[in-house]
Amino acid sequence: MRRFGGIEAGGSKFVCGVGSGPEDLESIEFPTAGPEETVARCVAYFKDQERVEGVGIASFGPIDSDPLSATFGYITSTPKTAWRNFDFAGAVRKALGVPVAFDTDVNAAARAEFQWGAAQGLTTFLYVTVGTGIGGGAMVNGRMLHGRGHPEMGHVRVPHDRARDPFPGNCPYHGDCLEGLAAAPAIAARWGQAPHLLPSDHPAWGLEAEYLALGLLNWIATLAPERIILGGGVMARKGLLTGVCGRVMELMNGYMNLPAMVAPALDARAGVLGAIALAAAG
Amino acid sequence: MRRFGGIEAGGSKFVCGVGSGPEDLESIEFPTAGPEETVARCVAYFKDQERVEGVGIASFGPIDSDPLSATFGYITSTPKTAWRNFDFAGAVRKALGVPVAFDTDVNAAARAEFQWGAAQGLTTFLYVTVGTGIGGGAMVNGRMLHGRGHPEMGHVRVPHDRARDPFPGNCPYHGDCLEGLAAAPAIAARWGQAPHLLPSDHPAWGLEAEYLALGLLNWIATLAPERIILGGGVMARKGLLTGVCGRVMELMNGYMNLPAMVAPALDARAGVLGAIALAAAG
Repeated sequence: MRRFGGIEAGGSKFVCGVGSGPEDLESIEFPTAGPEETVARCVAYFKDQERVEGVGIASFGPIDSDPLSATFGYITSTPKTAWRNFDFAGAVRKALGVPVAFDTDVNAAARAEFQWGAAQGLTTFLYVTVGTGIGGGAMVNGRMLHGRGHPEMGHVRVPHDRARDPFPGNCPYHGDCLEGLAAAPAIAARWGQAPHLLPSDHPAWGLEAEYLALGLLNWIATLAPERIILGGGVMARKGLLTGVCGRVMELMNGYMNLPAMVAPALDARAGVLGAIALAAAG
Repeated sequence: MRRFGGIEAGGSKFVCGVGSGPEDLESIEFPTAGPEETVARCVAYFKDQERVEGVGIASFGPIDSDPLSATFGYITSTPKTAWRNFDFAGAVRKALGVPVAFDTDVNAAARAEFQWGAAQGLTTFLYVTVGTGIGGGAMVNGRMLHGRGHPEMGHVRVPHDRARDPFPGNCPYHGDCLEGLAAAPAIAARWGQAPHLLPSDHPAWGLEAEYLALGLLNWIATLAPERIILGGGVMARKGLLTGVCGRVMELMNGYMNLPAMVAPALDARAGVLGAIALAAAG
């Protein structure tokens, strides 16, 4: 059994793990600190383990994930200033002396669902996460979509009915893009309460379903995915996925066949498993 | 030199051509009639030519372009009832006895630009046409994006400021999706005049640039293309491409690096050349 290491690098916590997949995964997690200190903890963890063939990093972003770029493996223009322009993949590679693969957290989670979860056997699908931010990772014709830089799917623009919803949106770049209207901080700012404290019959959830359905329509019209996996903290709300699917169907109005829209099959380990899948893919 | 045949099948006219590329292309065009009569004219044209190795069809849609589907090569749910559920590729293949490749008109035009035009050397790009409808064909990692069915990029939803623009949109399925707000028939319906009759200082063009920029933002956020080629009758309006680019830049507000947005390099022959490229690709 080939063993790989995975680093799920989030804005608030890191998960490091080793294994070949969900069956034998071992992992630890700790809070994100500055880049040197945090990478040192990752490196110490991997040095304590049996040697791995390579390490994958599933990183918060924006990042440079283009292997042909001079700054491949760097975190780029993040608001976390200590991490800006940090050679993340390079630091891990130098410390451990193994190949390091590097991609966005959503692309890695999509890979994990492809390898072990809800996207097995597909060639064109979309993984979406709705939490602190909104992001999407897409596989097209059996390969991850990177493009120039990487997609920023949460920043699509959607209709915003200001009579129904006067909240102006809180994306620092775009105001009322999808992320600015429908990520967890937008819900909290609009209603004055964290999403998990809002009861299931609160109008917040109908509005949330509306915005997510509009975002999904745009991704479906552009990518025509075979399936869409919807994960993240906000999507864990009971009934939301059903509400979103119903609204997508109404809004599409029979024009395109709709993909199945499903919950992730992997639990909170999708990130670190995705990083391991990334390392295995080379 | 390998020679192929191409059929550009449009809702109002057909173009048939033979050749290996732009250098030696010969073609004819005629109005679209019913499917049997129109295919008979295509077949007669090809029988008069030197034998070709295969034929590509760049078709209006919606179509079934999935080679694994039982109805591959069919026109599907088009409003042109005579063509609905017509085995287009099958009819041509039976009559000519050569392999027939089949894809959407926009995917074929994208292929032509990839092979001979403004997308040479790229691996992830988008071709958009703005005319009677709005459509997009994307290459991702060097292969055309098909997905489940095919994308319908013109049907993305965009913000619609009804105070600035009370026109409700004219998409029969979605009302004010992008196509319902910004394709040529929407411009004509909103202003009571065909787009080519509206002077360049008419407010129609600022509004058109706004909607197209919002659509482009959505495609850029989802696909992160290296370049976007903007063709079609509406885009031929002098100054519009510049206006669209400027507005995309403002709306993106520095969040993502923007792809170059350029005019097509091929002229009106892109469709039939795309059909030939499709045949050559197998």
